[in-house]
Amino acid sequence: MSRCLISKLEVQSFIERCMTAVGTQPHHARSLAEVLVEGDHRGHYSHGLNRMDMYVKDIQTGICAKDGEPVVEKESAATALVDGKNLLGPVVGNFCMNLAMKKAKEVGIGWVVAHGSNHYGIAGYYAMQALKEGMIGMAFTNTSPLVVPTRGKECTLGTNPISVAAPASDGDSFVLDMATSAVALGKVELYERRGDSIPEGWGCDTEGKLTADPKKVLNGGGLLPIGGSEATGGYKGYGLGMMVEVFCGILAGAQYSKNIRTWKVTDRVANLGQCFVAVNPENFAPGFNDRMSDLLSIHRGLDPADPDTPVLTAGDPERTNIKACEEMGGIPYHINVVNYMNECAKKIGVSQLLPCDKFVSN
Amino acid sequence: MSRCLISKLEVQSFIERCMTAVGTQPHHARSLAEVLVEGDHRGHYSHGLNRMDMYVKDIQTGICAKDGEPVVEKESAATALVDGKNLLGPVVGNFCMNLAMKKAKEVGIGWVVAHGSNHYGIAGYYAMQALKEGMIGMAFTNTSPLVVPTRGKECTLGTNPISVAAPASDGDSFVLDMATSAVALGKVELYERRGDSIPEGWGCDTEGKLTADPKKVLNGGGLLPIGGSEATGGYKGYGLGMMVEVFCGILAGAQYSKNIRTWKVTDRVANLGQCFVAVNPENFAPGFNDRMSDLLSIHRGLDPADPDTPVLTAGDPERTNIKACEEMGGIPYHINVVNYMNECAKKIGVSQLLPCDKFVSN
Repeated sequence: MSRCLISKLEVQSFIERCMTAVGTQPHHARSLAEVLVEGDHRGHYSHGLNRMDMYVKDIQTGICAKDGEPVVEKESAATALVDGKNLLGPVVGNFCMNLAMKKAKEVGIGWVVAHGSNHYGIAGYYAMQALKEGMIGMAFTNTSPLVVPTRGKECTLGTNPISVAAPASDGDSFVLDMATSAVALGKVELYERRGDSIPEGWGCDTEGKLTADPKKVLNGGGLLPIGGSEATGGYKGYGLGMMVEVFCGILAGAQYSKNIRTWKVTDRVANLGQCFVAVNPENFAPGFNDRMSDLLSIHRGLDPADPDTPVLTAGDPERTNIKACEEMGGIPYHINVVNYMNECAKKIGVSQLLPCDKFVSN
Repeated sequence: MSRCLISKLEVQSFIERCMTAVGTQPHHARSLAEVLVEGDHRGHYSHGLNRMDMYVKDIQTGICAKDGEPVVEKESAATALVDGKNLLGPVVGNFCMNLAMKKAKEVGIGWVVAHGSNHYGIAGYYAMQALKEGMIGMAFTNTSPLVVPTRGKECTLGTNPISVAAPASDGDSFVLDMATSAVALGKVELYERRGDSIPEGWGCDTEGKLTADPKKVLNGGGLLPIGGSEATGGYKGYGLGMMVEVFCGILAGAQYSKNIRTWKVTDRVANLGQCFVAVNPENFAPGFNDRMSDLLSIHRGLDPADPDTPVLTAGDPERTNIKACEEMGGIPYHINVVNYMNECAKKIGVSQLLPCDKFVSN
């Protein structure tokens, strides 16, 4: 397939242009653009440029605040409760993660939760901020209900991601960034568009029965938690999804569970709950980075079951994607995405993504 | 099946009798007995009385220390690094969890890791200590390699459990206590003894290929991470297992990954790494317990897919088991377990479990 190559800088600038055109504060627009570009750069296109129109709309309709800053409501040496003031998710996320790291530098750990937040892109972006300071970072968020709990038939939990990043030597790292659902909704949508059936264990129908028909999952059914059905351990994924909800909506006093607004329906403010943690290895046993490197090496060096698919560690597929982007000199987008984004830009009087005539096969 | 009913107090006393008979300090024996009894009471027989002989042997052979106390090596207002001094796991676990809760009372969170520890029974026991103080508790431990990472064929990770307990109103709670493997090893052993095949996604053979033959899993193969194969999301369980290793062996400077001694082979000290966390909801939004109760109610009140299997929340199956034990007035054990334990007791000159003639059908 042929894709349109656009430089990282231009994508960054384009998102900033669009967001500021509808009234977003420039430094807020920059924060959002950075997270979305990072999503695409890592190969998670479902959390990048192609979601920009959602954020533009949130600012245009006023359902998300375009001005102001998050506020610390309660604080200790190691913890904080933050009011995100309904600002863009990345504005709240950066504020909280920076605060968590500051605390971790002083007392070894910072645990910060926010209410009044919005979608913040990939959770891994925030966890990875801690790597720059040689710390372990974690990020969690609740999201709109899309997951059906084990034995149920109604969506009561979001895809509630868990992200944990830990530094190793020489800039290497472990970066776990995973939804607590068996798969992402976007993956089911992709199968549906192709007319393919989905593997057992991804989703269920309106009656809570496992189904291979993506249409049934998308129309009144829902995603299953990691582990799939009860027999294959889906109750563990359900438990993890609820753990994320405890750290986010419950601890922060934000919306939670099925009270969170429906996915893509912006009839009221999101009031998402989010949790950000930084842990400083210097407060524990010396030599953390070396042991991390050894742990990664042990796994990467394993004899694979299939010689064509080497054993990886969390973050390796994204590292490969970033390297490919750097070699090409940009991020390859499907031309439909570029055209759609340029139409959006036109409507708000913003100059288009350039150039649009550099294609790569990918 | 008929089972032998023994009072909780007698099981507690029996384990204390056996452990002190081989030279364990009485208060250490008490700590171990409490965790094992709690395991059985909650229905997790694989982590209760039937493992007592392993702990007796550990003390008898001197591979585990029978005297001394854990030592804090490094400390901040919110963190601590503890040397478990090769003491029994529950001695280290209680010491660390108490320290984490003390810190959480002062600064909202305590994050304590230990090296030099041993098997500590159910992780949930430690997480649940925090409930008594109205806090969220967490416990993690690394364990002997039994899990094969996605795409590999060698065991490099233990069943590395995650436990998170959170208080709700009126003594109710959420208690997640789960291995990061698809199933416990004991479950595969059970199928093997019965001559049954296991469901796809539980384990693999020596070549890393999924297998339905429990013998292959037990003889050179291994357990799969939660999620099963790569196609069904097993890489998420693999990532979570490694996250636990980061919090435990790597952060604590203990043994880690495939360097940990083989399961049931006690040729050298275990030097396990463990992590204990307490988070004080009072440092965050008011009304935590009420929101937790609402979250639990939302799920327990869901219309189930099958009317015969109601939707549960983490900790509910154990609650049912505890209630059944209380109604019977004791814990029902398989007679073989009782006989085996009494043989062990005889060898070390300890009086037997009493009475052994009270049977219940269960």
